Amino acid sequence: MSVVSNSGTTATGSIAVEPVVTDLPGHTIVLGATTPLELVSGQRLGPFTVAYQTYGTLNAERSNAVLVCHALTGDQYAAEPHPITGKPGWWNMVIGSGLPIDTDRFCVISINVLGGCMGTAGPRDINPRTGKNFGLDFPIITITDMVAAQKLVIDHLGIDKLFCVTGGSMGAMQALEWAARYPERVFCAIPIAGAARHSAQNIAFGEVGRQAIMADPNWHGGNYYDQDDTPHRGLSVARMAAHITYLSESALHRKFGRELQDRKDISYGFDADFQIESYLRYQGSTFVERFDANSYLYITRAMDYFDLAAEHDGVLGHAFKDTKVRFCLISFTSDWLFPTTESRQLIHALNAVAASGSFVEIETDAGHDAFLLDEPEFFRILSGFLSGAAELHGLNGGRQDAEETTAP
Amino acid sequence: MSVVSNSGTTATGSIAVEPVVTDLPGHTIVLGATTPLELVSGQRLGPFTVAYQTYGTLNAERSNAVLVCHALTGDQYAAEPHPITGKPGWWNMVIGSGLPIDTDRFCVISINVLGGCMGTAGPRDINPRTGKNFGLDFPIITITDMVAAQKLVIDHLGIDKLFCVTGGSMGAMQALEWAARYPERVFCAIPIAGAARHSAQNIAFGEVGRQAIMADPNWHGGNYYDQDDTPHRGLSVARMAAHITYLSESALHRKFGRELQDRKDISYGFDADFQIESYLRYQGSTFVERFDANSYLYITRAMDYFDLAAEHDGVLGHAFKDTKVRFCLISFTSDWLFPTTESRQLIHALNAVAASGSFVEIETDAGHDAFLLDEPEFFRILSGFLSGAAELHGLNGGRQDAEETTAP
Repeated sequence: MSVVSNSGTTATGSIAVEPVVTDLPGHTIVLGATTPLELVSGQRLGPFTVAYQTYGTLNAERSNAVLVCHALTGDQYAAEPHPITGKPGWWNMVIGSGLPIDTDRFCVISINVLGGCMGTAGPRDINPRTGKNFGLDFPIITITDMVAAQKLVIDHLGIDKLFCVTGGSMGAMQALEWAARYPERVFCAIPIAGAARHSAQNIAFGEVGRQAIMADPNWHGGNYYDQDDTPHRGLSVARMAAHITYLSESALHRKFGRELQDRKDISYGFDADFQIESYLRYQGSTFVERFDANSYLYITRAMDYFDLAAEHDGVLGHAFKDTKVRFCLISFTSDWLFPTTESRQLIHALNAVAASGSFVEIETDAGHDAFLLDEPEFFRILSGFLSGAAELHGLNGGRQDAEETTAP
Repeated sequence: MSVVSNSGTTATGSIAVEPVVTDLPGHTIVLGATTPLELVSGQRLGPFTVAYQTYGTLNAERSNAVLVCHALTGDQYAAEPHPITGKPGWWNMVIGSGLPIDTDRFCVISINVLGGCMGTAGPRDINPRTGKNFGLDFPIITITDMVAAQKLVIDHLGIDKLFCVTGGSMGAMQALEWAARYPERVFCAIPIAGAARHSAQNIAFGEVGRQAIMADPNWHGGNYYDQDDTPHRGLSVARMAAHITYLSESALHRKFGRELQDRKDISYGFDADFQIESYLRYQGSTFVERFDANSYLYITRAMDYFDLAAEHDGVLGHAFKDTKVRFCLISFTSDWLFPTTESRQLIHALNAVAASGSFVEIETDAGHDAFLLDEPEFFRILSGFLSGAAELHGLNGGRQDAEETTAP
């Protein structure tokens, strides 16, 4: 995949974004240099950089691309060690040779979202007009904008039609938006643990996270990049609160219960006596190493603003009218952040317009995070649906590399 | 009810607590002056002040006292306007003439918990040894300690046996602790929306709140009382996060949904576009006017440490062996913070030791907060159980004031 360098030309009236210098691995592409991207807010963006990764090989027909969309705190490093933390990719168990999204058959494209902080344009980047980091001067991003930027990448790669677009949580929102906005560019979509809109409770948790960040005096109204310190305390609290919502009550009970951390008795103090406290503090402190606080604000806001029905005259079904996209919706029984009822509403909307949609609710106590965990039934569903869809899509029902194909 | 003034004598080796000067209405009593209170942590407290309120009249036999225990952020002003906010008492709909806890029949006693900030000894009070506010030098308080202090108040009032002890949430924990520790001093107990222990998820939310407070640079390790500012930002975030857990997802959807606040369109910014955001910010900002951040730390910690089974060799039933206390447990269907399963565990434990216990799960979408709201079925259950128990307790089945008694 080619890397395109910043042309430096700025389309009139649009917001140019200069990336902060990083040595992150992977591909980058500069978009919107000649025709800026029209954002939902009315602002225009360009030129701006998008960072992405690929796994597997695009076939000659460019018909085997699977776009994997990441969640709030994910990034393009879906199936390789994270360049900052060194931890395995967030979909390491899903993407790879012989795995549910089989890189021997499919070419996976994973793109850091607009507003992010891993190479794609976001609030940490430089505003060439001021020479300073944008901070809150960066334009508000919506899920629609994220998907519009992704489409430009797909255009650039010469892919007429994605075989599949998938993702969990906010990734599911993007998959839905893709299918709704560019139905002719998507063969099938697998929105996992998603919803057609952010609920009041989800907005509430988003707002708590944002307020935690904004309450941190190191935040400085978003202009902390040239300061000695970052709003890491606020970001850590935001992450801790959010992390509780990713797990189910029963998973927390099973994993931690009231077990104590490295001690036999409670300390009668405010140390992390309980394992769950220690775990949450760790989640908070490691998160701030790899994530920009302003990006957290922008991306949670994008999720809050997502409302697919509102984008289509208030009728969810209209988002999928006459669609030929084949959907497979997946939810998890113990997910209370994006509960099954949300996926059910989607499947009802698909049914109402006679779209092709199947829906599977997977029994697990792992909560919302189940889509990131070792859930064999989930893997079987994913693998099975992709195989069936690949056959329908003429992907020969086998691996791309003829030598590796085994007869059934 | 008499007001006892601080004797000034300090029992050897115990922590004396000098109240900060306030003009809060109601009763105060100084306890532990001669015999300090032995805390669960091993520390000894005394003298220290406890503040309480009463509603209704104690009968000649002193047999009609109902102890009402408040929740995390409640206080003794259960049935009167709050002296700081002016808002109605938190159980204004429950306590009063002709209400479920009928002050024409019962004498309600409502005591600010140890560790609190409305007159009872807590971290804001003065350490006479240093002349400064305690901050984190205040000893850690447990639910057991709260109840032990309450018992000293009940002793002081000359009440041999409480007719009833009740409360919601942390109030239920206290009611359970009373019944378990002083069964001979309690005729009946009504733990509402409670649990025999704080779950991992509850500890997790408690820890998020504490970390939000401690992350606020104004917290100064707990020594902020002589500073220009308080950790109100952190406390506000803690309150916002907690407040989400008090409501159900469906109540949030019903009350707020995705409705916008004072605007027709989203702002594409970080203002409180949505009503739920505005509501949460309001909850946070009003809370900090009346609550001390360190008290929030201490009281959430007391809840975390509560584990009634652990106090009784790991067997919950042992807490109620041979008890004569009559229990009425109440839970709410949509309460996910103290879900019905917690009350069910309690009723199983009561059944296992053949204690007298009834259990009602009330259908509502109001979530944990239901015990503070207008829930007619809840009121009927409360009223009905109290009437039946009053008759058994020889409270004449009627009002205390003969003139007011109406024949059935």
